[in-house]
Amino acid sequence: MAPQIRRLQVAVSGLGRMGARHANHFLHRTPRAELVAAFSPDPKEIEWAKEHLEPWGVKLYTEFDEMLKHEGLEAVCVATATTVHAEQTIKAIEAGKHVLCEKPLSTKLEISQQVFDTAARHPHTKVMCGFSRRFDASYLSAYNLARSGSIGRPTILRSQTCDKYDPSGFFVAYAQFSGGIFVDCNIHDIDLALWFFSADNGGAQLPKVKSVVAFGVTALEPDLAKYGDVDNGVGVVEFWDGQIAYFYSSRMNPPGQHDMTEIIGTTGKLSVNANPTTGLLESHLATGIHRDIPQNYYERFEGAFVEEARQFTDAVLDDKPVPVDLAGSVEAVKIGVALQDSLRSGKKILFDRDGKRVDEDGFARAKL
Amino acid sequence: MAPQIRRLQVAVSGLGRMGARHANHFLHRTPRAELVAAFSPDPKEIEWAKEHLEPWGVKLYTEFDEMLKHEGLEAVCVATATTVHAEQTIKAIEAGKHVLCEKPLSTKLEISQQVFDTAARHPHTKVMCGFSRRFDASYLSAYNLARSGSIGRPTILRSQTCDKYDPSGFFVAYAQFSGGIFVDCNIHDIDLALWFFSADNGGAQLPKVKSVVAFGVTALEPDLAKYGDVDNGVGVVEFWDGQIAYFYSSRMNPPGQHDMTEIIGTTGKLSVNANPTTGLLESHLATGIHRDIPQNYYERFEGAFVEEARQFTDAVLDDKPVPVDLAGSVEAVKIGVALQDSLRSGKKILFDRDGKRVDEDGFARAKL
Amino acid sequence: MAPQIRRLQVAVSGLGRMGARHANHFLHRTPRAELVAAFSPDPKEIEWAKEHLEPWGVKLYTEFDEMLKHEGLEAVCVATATTVHAEQTIKAIEAGKHVLCEKPLSTKLEISQQVFDTAARHPHTKVMCGFSRRFDASYLSAYNLARSGSIGRPTILRSQTCDKYDPSGFFVAYAQFSGGIFVDCNIHDIDLALWFFSADNGGAQLPKVKSVVAFGVTALEPDLAKYGDVDNGVGVVEFWDGQIAYFYSSRMNPPGQHDMTEIIGTTGKLSVNANPTTGLLESHLATGIHRDIPQNYYERFEGAFVEEARQFTDAVLDDKPVPVDLAGSVEAVKIGVALQDSLRSGKKILFDRDGKRVDEDGFARAKL
Amino acid sequence: MAPQIRRLQVAVSGLGRMGARHANHFLHRTPRAELVAAFSPDPKEIEWAKEHLEPWGVKLYTEFDEMLKHEGLEAVCVATATTVHAEQTIKAIEAGKHVLCEKPLSTKLEISQQVFDTAARHPHTKVMCGFSRRFDASYLSAYNLARSGSIGRPTILRSQTCDKYDPSGFFVAYAQFSGGIFVDCNIHDIDLALWFFSADNGGAQLPKVKSVVAFGVTALEPDLAKYGDVDNGVGVVEFWDGQIAYFYSSRMNPPGQHDMTEIIGTTGKLSVNANPTTGLLESHLATGIHRDIPQNYYERFEGAFVEEARQFTDAVLDDKPVPVDLAGSVEAVKIGVALQDSLRSGKKILFDRDGKRVDEDGFARAKL
Repeated sequence: MAPQIRRLQVAVSGLGRMGARHANHFLHRTPRAELVAAFSPDPKEIEWAKEHLEPWGVKLYTEFDEMLKHEGLEAVCVATATTVHAEQTIKAIEAGKHVLCEKPLSTKLEISQQVFDTAARHPHTKVMCGFSRRFDASYLSAYNLARSGSIGRPTILRSQTCDKYDPSGFFVAYAQFSGGIFVDCNIHDIDLALWFFSADNGGAQLPKVKSVVAFGVTALEPDLAKYGDVDNGVGVVEFWDGQIAYFYSSRMNPPGQHDMTEIIGTTGKLSVNANPTTGLLESHLATGIHRDIPQNYYERFEGAFVEEARQFTDAVLDDKPVPVDLAGSVEAVKIGVALQDSLRSGKKILFDRDGKRVDEDGFARAKL
Repeated sequence: MAPQIRRLQVAVSGLGRMGARHANHFLHRTPRAELVAAFSPDPKEIEWAKEHLEPWGVKLYTEFDEMLKHEGLEAVCVATATTVHAEQTIKAIEAGKHVLCEKPLSTKLEISQQVFDTAARHPHTKVMCGFSRRFDASYLSAYNLARSGSIGRPTILRSQTCDKYDPSGFFVAYAQFSGGIFVDCNIHDIDLALWFFSADNGGAQLPKVKSVVAFGVTALEPDLAKYGDVDNGVGVVEFWDGQIAYFYSSRMNPPGQHDMTEIIGTTGKLSVNANPTTGLLESHLATGIHRDIPQNYYERFEGAFVEEARQFTDAVLDDKPVPVDLAGSVEAVKIGVALQDSLRSGKKILFDRDGKRVDEDGFARAKL
Repeated sequence: MAPQIRRLQVAVSGLGRMGARHANHFLHRTPRAELVAAFSPDPKEIEWAKEHLEPWGVKLYTEFDEMLKHEGLEAVCVATATTVHAEQTIKAIEAGKHVLCEKPLSTKLEISQQVFDTAARHPHTKVMCGFSRRFDASYLSAYNLARSGSIGRPTILRSQTCDKYDPSGFFVAYAQFSGGIFVDCNIHDIDLALWFFSADNGGAQLPKVKSVVAFGVTALEPDLAKYGDVDNGVGVVEFWDGQIAYFYSSRMNPPGQHDMTEIIGTTGKLSVNANPTTGLLESHLATGIHRDIPQNYYERFEGAFVEEARQFTDAVLDDKPVPVDLAGSVEAVKIGVALQDSLRSGKKILFDRDGKRVDEDGFARAKL
Repeated sequence: MAPQIRRLQVAVSGLGRMGARHANHFLHRTPRAELVAAFSPDPKEIEWAKEHLEPWGVKLYTEFDEMLKHEGLEAVCVATATTVHAEQTIKAIEAGKHVLCEKPLSTKLEISQQVFDTAARHPHTKVMCGFSRRFDASYLSAYNLARSGSIGRPTILRSQTCDKYDPSGFFVAYAQFSGGIFVDCNIHDIDLALWFFSADNGGAQLPKVKSVVAFGVTALEPDLAKYGDVDNGVGVVEFWDGQIAYFYSSRMNPPGQHDMTEIIGTTGKLSVNANPTTGLLESHLATGIHRDIPQNYYERFEGAFVEEARQFTDAVLDDKPVPVDLAGSVEAVKIGVALQDSLRSGKKILFDRDGKRVDEDGFARAKL
């Protein structure tokens, strides 16, 4: 019998590391979605898609604009290089497509703002930035506990993003376009701070940043300095209403990926992944007790990415708000960029109560 | 475009608790399989299926034999009540269908053996008993380590199956048909013992049982005694070649499901789930540090059930041996039944080297 | 100023591995006790004592009977080889000394009983068998929770004693005198079962053993078979009032000492050392996350031994009951010996409600 | 027989919470030391001492200067209120006594420096500030691993000191004299940073502070603001040679004391107490799995305080360097005070390569 279920017609743009995964999630793990098209400018990625997507009925495109015209297409998942996230998202919105865009919207605040403004002009189009960590089961449980008041008022948030060291030099090359460690890695932690610090109002109002400061070192990759980047960063973000978030990011965690977060409220603390592990196995050997941890962020967050695809699909099909508010995603870029600036200048950066950045030397910057 | 992928045409028999889940796994989470049909004799289950399966193109049947005739059907997942597992499996095999049968094959050894014999007469038909625990990522990692020699020779295995207490009396009603706690719960642990104790020969040869003994109490449900069953059981199984497995099962674990296994080899120990948890979240509250554990076996083993469906599908499509050998599944029933007998009689039960059970009172006990 | 505190005048008998530690505990870590004398028949141990005890004012003896006559001596800690525990304890009691005797009282039930009978004839003399595990902070907390009803009725107890493998052959030589793995190692676990299963009556009444069965293998030390011993043992003890204890012991745990216990009650479980570690340090290295565990029982239970000395001293000075009741220590030997017998005979051993052992073949053994 | 062992003749000054503990440690748990005298100006504390110290031969004094004249006195443990630490330490040094002084030397840098200068003029006198955490077994293991190169170069250190919330208002009253949360709590974490960041040179050279910045909130105790203090503080300390330490302190951790530290090197990370617990017990109850953590710093660090007393005693008797170098203890005060200043001013505070503080407004900031 032919299925009678309406499924969201989705295309994925970009079939690199993360794009290929998104394609698989929409193709095989999102029952209410149907992957109908995919775009990549890269012949190698198209080769991969011919083997893994085309046989399942997915139409392949080498031009993004062509793909947008795919008949019946309803939504696009933008998973290309960060530098074109915003451009493709804007085009897709303007073509009337719903968009799930990989984080960050852009490494630049102005451009992120343009995405937001475009979306605001298309109120019926769902636009969501893919902060995958929010869809992880442990973070979701933590959020529900925080929201229900289990820990009193969330006051301090500590969060870290630590990648396994990759000795190939990849991180150096990547630093040219990544926006730097605070925009690339800690953007997740910043988003978590915005999420948890607005848990008591159900996300209705974002906390207002007051100041940021950042520090960093190049412990293993001195060449990162060329791009004003570091391989270990520490940042602190202070909010106007008595909340503080502090972050750590690293490109040199030896056993693998160790992302963790503590949300500290006035009556309790929620700790996500303080005690990392890949699963439930420990080896008791002559050299002691051993366990493994995920080797990369996808091993850690695979389930979250799948859940993200499902919740985005549900939001579109059922016309509900997307679970990650776009204003917060722009705010995360603002804070990430400010941290990166602080890292480079060595200065503490201040914001007024309206969210406008004011230089330490006193005058308000009219336009960032 | 129409997909060009060949997908295994699967039906699920039985749409109760576990059957409904299997149906969902084949429908939405097994890319190379297509759920085409489903059978249930129960109007409530058919009602559920009309809502959740039919719209996706699944044909519903209220007669098992009719379902077997579904055009193009290649494989059946048998997930009905334990009492009809064997009958349906045999029918399906004889109709030329590959079968994934929920555990146990039967609560009776003779009937399990009939399944095995039927399968033996159809060597091109894949028949697998669904010992889901083998498909759990942590158990798979443990097995690979054991197989590669990381812990020397697997010598002692400790394994437990502990369910959350259900005060509704469900366990008492269920005991009539379940075969008893050793056949219903510890069958998994027995299967793990057979699996790990044959890891050094790659599963080519099962370890030979030498004796079993079992004990039990009815701590919370005295009515279980009516069915010769208990709510807490302890059993020991000795093998002829210097290996011992010991088991615990319980129907009264307060926080939830806690199934765990330790495989102790001559140079190391693998410990699966010694430190249970649902995820990576801990709450630090005034009352101490808290974490949750899964509330039932499906919360614990959901991923394993999905993986089981995938591996069964691959074995059929690619004509590879199924990952759970049927002879071992019969042996597991033999050992489970013997444990249950020992529980009831209070006797230690012995087996000769050919696997024949010899009574303690002397009969047929030529030479141990 | 001269101290005005009355301190218990203690002697230690035997200055081997454990005796030397007891001497140090009474000398330096038991404020209300004063180590005044020590005995060893071994010149090497006397050599050690000349360096470590004599300078602190401890008088050394090479004859046990001479030491008993030491002026003002009030109490003796018997820490010699197991074979002379009972003889020295009896002599010391008869000389009017309070006794803390290392476990087990004897590897023979009759002799343990003689110690008990002697103590019973000297009701003002405190006699305690040193089941150190009872003084460990985690076990004490568990007991207090069990006693207060936190887990309902203690019903199942699982406990293990696992030593680090010692490739020197020490365990083989030791097996000649140790009484076997169940009497030497699991005696602790048996004692814990007696302790926790009488928690609901405050220790007033010991649970009554109904049957025992044991299994074992020689995985690394086949020569143990000469002494009817094994390097891995599994035993089950059933009690008349619906309680079951099951034990594991091993001489081949690669990372070190792993002794653990679970006390399972009708409404909760207490788990001691499911997740072993030496302290609070973990290393995150390229090979994964690692931690160490104690290398031997003294590393694990050092604090318990000190606490044992303190509580024994307090019981004597304040004329309170000793915290480990002697009747239970005899019962532990009875159960341990029965397990060892079951291991050797392959038979399940039964006891009647009066605690008398009855052979499987029917007749009651008049005198064990 | 009379002991022939030479024991260090020690007095304790101050018998409050911590002083009474030090007295007990020197009296009962430091074999090579003899507590001969104790001083307190407080009648209640003297009352306590009459019961607990005097009977053991300890002479009590109500005048510090009188106590210093106690015949044969060799060493003083200064455990009075922080405000008189320095004064008493200086007096004791000048009277030729070795000194173990509780942390911090002072809440003021100048006064800490005076202690250092006095000690420098008495090179044969041992003076040590009691940074107890360094004597904890887990920290000692971590240090030995770091020193031996197991984690490459220590680069980032994260450390926190979190007290259980005390609703009595104690923390507010205490804030008047404590120097603030960074000087009172994080001083330990600062000391750890200095210790671990000089591990690669064996402590020969302290890392040079480059800048500090601090943030804080009063989440539960707004009255702390009167004293320029907070109940939650976050601080970052940057060093000139590419190392960063970041700290958190809190007065509101609900389950108890949670002090933890991560030392992140170029090839590994050492994690101390990421997974806090009081011992090896977990309760599996209907509400989940639970464990307790220490209720205060003494429960957490009791063993470390005892070890501190022992190592100080050994250093004096064997004329070895004290294990905590005094220069570092002054440096810790300098950094703690700067963090407290940054908290109050909202400014980042800079230091030149000679360790001189330079104001952000430009003064003395010749060349950074």
